Amino acid sequence: MKELFTQNLTVLNAGLTSFATNINHAGGNANSISWQPPASGNKEAGLGLATLINQPEIELANEVAMERYLSAIPTLVDVATASDAIPALAQKRLILHAGPPIAWNSMCGPMQGAILGAILFEKWASTLEEAEQIVIRGEISFEPCHHYDAVGPMAGIISASMPLWVIENPSNNNQRVFSNFNEGLGKVLRFGANSATVIERLEWMGTELASAMKAMLVESGPIELKPIMAQALHMGDEVHNRNAAATGLLLKQLVPALLRTSLDHEQVKRVISFITENDHFFLNLSMAACKSMLKAAENVPNSTMVTIMARNGVNFGIRLSGTNNTWFEAPANPVDGLFFPGYDVEDAAADLGDSAITETAGVGGFAMASSPAIVKFVGGTPADATNNSRSMQAITIGSNPAFTLPALNFASTAAGIDARKVVDRSILPIINTGIAHKKAGIGQIGAGITTAPMTCFVDALSSLVTQRKQDS
Amino acid sequence: MKELFTQNLTVLNAGLTSFATNINHAGGNANSISWQPPASGNKEAGLGLATLINQPEIELANEVAMERYLSAIPTLVDVATASDAIPALAQKRLILHAGPPIAWNSMCGPMQGAILGAILFEKWASTLEEAEQIVIRGEISFEPCHHYDAVGPMAGIISASMPLWVIENPSNNNQRVFSNFNEGLGKVLRFGANSATVIERLEWMGTELASAMKAMLVESGPIELKPIMAQALHMGDEVHNRNAAATGLLLKQLVPALLRTSLDHEQVKRVISFITENDHFFLNLSMAACKSMLKAAENVPNSTMVTIMARNGVNFGIRLSGTNNTWFEAPANPVDGLFFPGYDVEDAAADLGDSAITETAGVGGFAMASSPAIVKFVGGTPADATNNSRSMQAITIGSNPAFTLPALNFASTAAGIDARKVVDRSILPIINTGIAHKKAGIGQIGAGITTAPMTCFVDALSSLVTQRKQDS
Repeated sequence: MKELFTQNLTVLNAGLTSFATNINHAGGNANSISWQPPASGNKEAGLGLATLINQPEIELANEVAMERYLSAIPTLVDVATASDAIPALAQKRLILHAGPPIAWNSMCGPMQGAILGAILFEKWASTLEEAEQIVIRGEISFEPCHHYDAVGPMAGIISASMPLWVIENPSNNNQRVFSNFNEGLGKVLRFGANSATVIERLEWMGTELASAMKAMLVESGPIELKPIMAQALHMGDEVHNRNAAATGLLLKQLVPALLRTSLDHEQVKRVISFITENDHFFLNLSMAACKSMLKAAENVPNSTMVTIMARNGVNFGIRLSGTNNTWFEAPANPVDGLFFPGYDVEDAAADLGDSAITETAGVGGFAMASSPAIVKFVGGTPADATNNSRSMQAITIGSNPAFTLPALNFASTAAGIDARKVVDRSILPIINTGIAHKKAGIGQIGAGITTAPMTCFVDALSSLVTQRKQDS
Repeated sequence: MKELFTQNLTVLNAGLTSFATNINHAGGNANSISWQPPASGNKEAGLGLATLINQPEIELANEVAMERYLSAIPTLVDVATASDAIPALAQKRLILHAGPPIAWNSMCGPMQGAILGAILFEKWASTLEEAEQIVIRGEISFEPCHHYDAVGPMAGIISASMPLWVIENPSNNNQRVFSNFNEGLGKVLRFGANSATVIERLEWMGTELASAMKAMLVESGPIELKPIMAQALHMGDEVHNRNAAATGLLLKQLVPALLRTSLDHEQVKRVISFITENDHFFLNLSMAACKSMLKAAENVPNSTMVTIMARNGVNFGIRLSGTNNTWFEAPANPVDGLFFPGYDVEDAAADLGDSAITETAGVGGFAMASSPAIVKFVGGTPADATNNSRSMQAITIGSNPAFTLPALNFASTAAGIDARKVVDRSILPIINTGIAHKKAGIGQIGAGITTAPMTCFVDALSSLVTQRKQDS
């Protein structure tokens, strides 16, 4: 010990760098390493977290949830009208939306705009004013898509007459999940636009496009979605904000099958034009595939695996496998992004949509290393993209060998977010996202990167701690 | 000076590392840096090279050649029967092949096999034996594709009745270049296979496929090829050995146009199935686009820019812009690659095909950083792929802003190989290539990476030095 004080000290300083500054000023040699107390210093959460770490039943539960996620085989099997796929939609005037539950008055502009559009599409009203009146009179119910195993990007609106993709998971009793169809870019319902053009497009999608896709699937047979996603990850997509390759790969299966149907030639032409002109066509299938994988991992008692991350334009909500159907919510973090000309952060709605299901399943922001060109869309550099994929490995239960990243020497994508690791390491899940204008009817104004808020994870773990105390 | 000898020496050792070994043994501190004398120590070549460096008329000539290459707009405008596109093929029994000129007796197995197949396809003989007899009797002439501004992968066989893609360059008087159609993988003519299946496929391609592509182009209008290549470089292709994304992007333009034609529905189905099942379909268009860009840069007096690299299965040949139509040849370097199960290097034919035109134009091996997944096909690691793209920047006149590499932070691809830099820096152009079995009729047995032989570049520069002496 004496000897120590006679030597020149070399100090390793963890946490606040200001401590090191003083030592360096005094002629000492201090190196700083970044460190934060678990749960961003929330003492109660830190103590709760401690009871969840190195617990064999939690490790085992996470292994079970992870195995169910990994063994999922999301398969596109059919197209159905929403009211057929989700009976609740046939029983009352119900509209499904993205993210955790939210009341009409609290909704952001784009979600309200999209809901009014859906009411016109359903012919429950003939003008936007009329539509708003029936909402205000309380004649319409609202619930999250996730409550019915469905997902939708941005506003995520699903109403009775819309067509849905039907995805089955044969590795788990053919469990079904659903997503709506992608409308393309520009003025579209999911960004809150609701003009006549938007409604007419929805009508065409519900009739001509939906019937073509249904007939196509009869010819093609079930289409496995993971192989398409895996190939697309080798072709510059991260299958959230970039789906150009995946859409192309789907087209290669879809076009020959569509040509084998007995559909009218003009219909086939219009359908193929619509798909070839929309590089995001695959997005909703990617989301449904991710929902299918995560659905398999739901409701494993004691598991700290995150099974849902979703945004309603106000709040960010998550669910854990071990806490069943409880939402843990917090105000959405801001989006660090690139804006289209003429718009800036003042115009932006808060983070919105069910599409963070892709990150929850280990793609999107988690697989950014596969998609260096995405930075032209969401900002940053290709090195940032690679670093994002690397850092996510610190907060996941494991990785998914079905999805590999060439730029990381074919490493598997980080997958199975462990809420304990998020809180313990103060590293937040990264999400690639589109940015909607905060007013209804304008549409997309940019894209960027955001994170899930820490509070959701802290609260989810607290809830699990309480639940475990009650059970014991 | 005295002071120097009293200090501890730190030595920088350039070239042979053995010098440094002795210094280190004697207790000195020597660091080695790799260095080779120019032209691999060929003194005469080194002296010749010296007369070509820092010469304003050469710098200017290279700038002109480079500008013509950069401003090319290779555009797919038509499909034509070879004998219509290249009148010499209508005038005599002429067969075009890959690489520099070569006589029948010297050709490798796959090229001979492919030629016999082409003779059956042309119905100049009805059996392989008969075909060989008419070749031996000297009734068939052979010439390189490049002599007629055409290119073909592997054996690169073009005969009178085959369909050709017609590519025009509107930035240079609509100069035309040509390539044959891609047959797919497996047993195909370009790898020397010539069974009945191979010939029947060629017949179908010459009739049903060719007429569909011609009709499609009437509907689509001219298709610019550089934007497709540029996008594909952002989607994991290097547009030589990997063309999956480029083929998908072409399909997105081709399918809607094909559906607008009045072609029979069954024909359209067969054509689309053929293309969707062949991820290499775009390769021949990529090659023709590269030929078009480099054709524009040909015949600039004094230019040391390489305008052709091509292999005939025995010799590797190059041409320089400043030495017009002279070939400079050397035995092809071995291919370092991955072999399909059951085959090894003993079974391999020497490097073969006109497809090195892609590297000459700055893509393929030069753009490997865009295609980390290519290493699963040609060997090595994603880091090798990135390093290859970086090292090529040392031997080119400049780079091509039309082709950017996400993994190198969107740097432009190295382009315009300067023969002086190859010789001066002893860095050889890198080429991604398929490997054919050395016997006719077997087909592809692997893929890998090879380099252009140094002698070609040394000889080309010597020839330019001599020419300049004669002119002065």
